[in-house]
Amino acid sequence: MRNFVPQYNQVVNGEWDIAGLAKRSYDLEGKTVGIYGAGAIGQLVAMRLKPFDVKMYYYKRSRLSNTEEAVCGFRYVRLDDMMAHCDVIVIEAPLTPETEGLFDRDVLFGMKKGAWLVNTARGAIVDRDALVEALEEGHLAGYAGDVWDPEPAPPDHPWRTMPHHMMTPHTAGTTLDAQKHYAEDTRRCLEAFFAGEEIEDDHLIVEGGEIVSGTYKAIYEASESQSSTERLPTSTRADRPSVRDRAASAASSRGSPANGAARTPRTSTVEQNHSSHGMRWCKMLE
Amino acid sequence: MRNFVPQYNQVVNGEWDIAGLAKRSYDLEGKTVGIYGAGAIGQLVAMRLKPFDVKMYYYKRSRLSNTEEAVCGFRYVRLDDMMAHCDVIVIEAPLTPETEGLFDRDVLFGMKKGAWLVNTARGAIVDRDALVEALEEGHLAGYAGDVWDPEPAPPDHPWRTMPHHMMTPHTAGTTLDAQKHYAEDTRRCLEAFFAGEEIEDDHLIVEGGEIVSGTYKAIYEASESQSSTERLPTSTRADRPSVRDRAASAASSRGSPANGAARTPRTSTVEQNHSSHGMRWCKMLE
Repeated sequence: MRNFVPQYNQVVNGEWDIAGLAKRSYDLEGKTVGIYGAGAIGQLVAMRLKPFDVKMYYYKRSRLSNTEEAVCGFRYVRLDDMMAHCDVIVIEAPLTPETEGLFDRDVLFGMKKGAWLVNTARGAIVDRDALVEALEEGHLAGYAGDVWDPEPAPPDHPWRTMPHHMMTPHTAGTTLDAQKHYAEDTRRCLEAFFAGEEIEDDHLIVEGGEIVSGTYKAIYEASESQSSTERLPTSTRADRPSVRDRAASAASSRGSPANGAARTPRTSTVEQNHSSHGMRWCKMLE
Repeated sequence: MRNFVPQYNQVVNGEWDIAGLAKRSYDLEGKTVGIYGAGAIGQLVAMRLKPFDVKMYYYKRSRLSNTEEAVCGFRYVRLDDMMAHCDVIVIEAPLTPETEGLFDRDVLFGMKKGAWLVNTARGAIVDRDALVEALEEGHLAGYAGDVWDPEPAPPDHPWRTMPHHMMTPHTAGTTLDAQKHYAEDTRRCLEAFFAGEEIEDDHLIVEGGEIVSGTYKAIYEASESQSSTERLPTSTRADRPSVRDRAASAASSRGSPANGAARTPRTSTVEQNHSSHGMRWCKMLE
């Protein structure tokens, strides 16, 4: 929203045309921000946005406590209202059959005109061509994202060349600091495994052939349920679940919490502490 | 520190080379940040950095209260220590004869190797050629700034082409939202003036031929004192005041607070509420 890239480009190109830059530049301060998917990451994003004096809302299937809302500085809102009234929407939900393509043409063009969309979750949550259309037609003012579908994005992926984007090639979680965390946690898992000791619950996804991570379990179950749905005759447009219905079943579906009881053998699958924009990606949903 | 520009450039150039980008990418989380000049702006910067889990210090001639330090999330530190030990230094002090060129070769190369420098205050606080040298030799990892000396910067200004910078052409305070504030406040001053009413103290710099704004008064007085110094023989290198001495007299010199008593006539000079990076630039020093 600050129009950074054209400003930087003027600098390196030897130019100085303030008026040409200001016309697309806005303050974050005072804007209305909506966070779609207020799990661990969405809550961290909110806590970091809070001192910028924004008006902040979130959507999540299971409403957070009043204390959590106060600390994060946001309030719960109906999904339809959030989509229609926010200046900035931030996607922080996992990719599931329900969120895949959720931000389609209807949803994108249902957003407030001139709004910005941020997606640091998964590329496939946003419809590729509908996003290009929304930016080219000026319905959205800008798109910031680190994630693509597929990855690596092919050289001709249209998001590389669409107007007013601020994209990175999924590098947000690949800082040198983050890689140090990954290495340390992987080593800890392997050392525990070879010593026949328990792997910490926080690092455990699969145990004895069962998914024990709440997040991954929810995604897997949603995926299973989608597979049986797909055996039914293709639904017509009118039959499709509404944005609210689809999102409600996705934004914060609950999996079983990892069981603290002793389990052997444990599979040494590592859930990376994925540091993105300075945040630790732990479990996306609770 | 995220190495954004090369990441964005890969996107638009059709590339995807994560390793080539990660090697200069770091988390802000966990870093030590020092704020030079903790006036109104420095304090806002601190409040907005606080939730990023940084360790934060500040330098200011007059130490803030414990409550102010707690709200801002930083602690007072000696200037020399701050310069030598911080991963990131943020300059938020006004340009005065004492701060002009304060970040010279000695100070820049005295910073921690691999540190980042941010300057959204005034370009002339940083020595032009010494900065280029520090970046080219790899002593500093990066420089982010919105301010130049002179402005507009000539097309061949070396900061346009020095390595690892993230600069903008003094556009941070020129958002459309900020321009609306400028226009509204200017109109308010003019309306009050033509109606023979008081201009709000927050908007008053000069009254009856006297500088009444604390910030501007401090800068003016420092400038006057510098002028008399300049009449003395040029000091040798050894005679120059130390970083600490020079900075101590500059980082937060106190001017007289604007007098609330009735004054007529008032000069309708407007102190703009200069919105920069979402912050209101009011009085830089208290």
